[in-house]
Amino acid sequence: MSFRRVVALSGGVGGARFLDGLARALPAESLTAVVNTGDDFVHLGLHVCPDLDTVMYTLAALGDEERGWGLTGETFAALEMVRRYCGPDWFALGDRDLATHLLRTEAMRGGETLTTITARLCGALGIEARVLPMADGPCRTMIETVAQGTLPFQDWFVRHRAKPAVRAVRFEGRPSPAPGVVEALDASDLVLIGPSNPYVSIDPILALDGIRAALSRKPVVAVSPIVGGRAVKGPLGAMIPELTGAPPTAGAIARHYGALLRGLVVEHGDEREAFGVAIRATGTIMKSRDERRRLAEDTLAFAAELVP
Amino acid sequence: MSFRRVVALSGGVGGARFLDGLARALPAESLTAVVNTGDDFVHLGLHVCPDLDTVMYTLAALGDEERGWGLTGETFAALEMVRRYCGPDWFALGDRDLATHLLRTEAMRGGETLTTITARLCGALGIEARVLPMADGPCRTMIETVAQGTLPFQDWFVRHRAKPAVRAVRFEGRPSPAPGVVEALDASDLVLIGPSNPYVSIDPILALDGIRAALSRKPVVAVSPIVGGRAVKGPLGAMIPELTGAPPTAGAIARHYGALLRGLVVEHGDEREAFGVAIRATGTIMKSRDERRRLAEDTLAFAAELVP
Repeated sequence: MSFRRVVALSGGVGGARFLDGLARALPAESLTAVVNTGDDFVHLGLHVCPDLDTVMYTLAALGDEERGWGLTGETFAALEMVRRYCGPDWFALGDRDLATHLLRTEAMRGGETLTTITARLCGALGIEARVLPMADGPCRTMIETVAQGTLPFQDWFVRHRAKPAVRAVRFEGRPSPAPGVVEALDASDLVLIGPSNPYVSIDPILALDGIRAALSRKPVVAVSPIVGGRAVKGPLGAMIPELTGAPPTAGAIARHYGALLRGLVVEHGDEREAFGVAIRATGTIMKSRDERRRLAEDTLAFAAELVP
Repeated sequence: MSFRRVVALSGGVGGARFLDGLARALPAESLTAVVNTGDDFVHLGLHVCPDLDTVMYTLAALGDEERGWGLTGETFAALEMVRRYCGPDWFALGDRDLATHLLRTEAMRGGETLTTITARLCGALGIEARVLPMADGPCRTMIETVAQGTLPFQDWFVRHRAKPAVRAVRFEGRPSPAPGVVEALDASDLVLIGPSNPYVSIDPILALDGIRAALSRKPVVAVSPIVGGRAVKGPLGAMIPELTGAPPTAGAIARHYGALLRGLVVEHGDEREAFGVAIRATGTIMKSRDERRRLAEDTLAFAAELVP
């Protein structure tokens, strides 16, 4: 079958690159991205949405491919000056990136919702896919560490470089899903979960009211963020053993999503584990834009086989 | 006599350069700058203080000498991105300049006063002179134009390039002088008025409660911002005829300040007018830092002759 309405759940870098592949594998009107906002935080008075920004910049082909975050050709003159003033410099705000935060913050202060602001910013960048924040209201991903107490996500991830071992992840605030999110899921014929960290990028979305119920009525296919027993990027490789006692494998991802999942796309070689779910092995590392598109196409083809 | 405590009233560029000369002509502890904040405005959610910033950057030797405003070597990547988002780009926020606005805005939102923030930022930039905003509370300089109604100062000055003819200038808000301003004036043995626009840079300071009374007890010497019948910079050359019907001369500056003034420093050749106040002619154009210092020294020497 060929899918007409696909919703993809996404966190930052891996999810954003997968979205970029989907955006070019599907007609523009077919793709809706629902993006984690649990990482959002206020820094220097600015409302920063790291995952939304990564998705926007990546879909607009403005993302820095080597660094993995922020804008390509970005400069950091403002940050350097913040440092000169002895201001807080632990979060690297780029100069062009600042424009995003300034316009977003100003609009939110004026009463606009994150959903409409995001649509406006995406439109200005020429992004055709629909990009929805998971929620307009605040939701904060909190990391309970073994030795350093509970830290807000960015504190743990950026300031502490994701080093403190994790005991649990929880979400503060119970916002409703943003307008259009549940509707998009209900109208979809396929839901994809990008290769994002399930604990801190996807679970915040799944924790919102009505999301799991909506997903239970749809075919859901995920792409594993674990490749050959390691996280492609970020702290997931350490988090799986810390949170489950099991080694970081694609199987751990399958178990985490459990009955929600119709199928899982894994890296060549990772299909040898027994998963209890349909598996498709392919190349999941997305270095070039062509690799993103190919992974998106492989995932869609696999999903088509699963959905009669 | 040699002055031990000098207060200088200042607007933007001309006043800031004169302050820079004073800062090097006087011992560090002798100089207090009181800076106009009537031009302050909120842009993209940021509290921007154009005159304070120009004073800070100039005293820190970070000011752009050629452009006349902003930081030397400044970049405008954020502004370019704001433009890409179709955001408001009429006010040129530099990337490093943004750090100043972000830190100031964040601190003000946290309840800090403009006075203490300014002291902190100046300290971080290594500025030894005391820099006081004229007021912590908001005061807005409004330009009543002949044909385009009443405009907030930055709207008139930047967005409309100071072109609409001016009928009157008025100040909205009646904040108290900032803590330390009247005290500094009372403790001073000389008050200087820099070569700033009297209507929009100095009058906002003079309009605050208690300032004129404090000045009336001190020797006050101004430096004329009019040279050879023209404003050195900015819209003053047009404003004088618009507001007084008289030609733009150093004499018009003397008449504007009236009995407040003990002496006026003017450009060579401008002393031929009858002023009704003590006059010292010297070179008042400050291109190099040496010229600033020389003008400051000449002004202090002239003032010393006036004060027995």
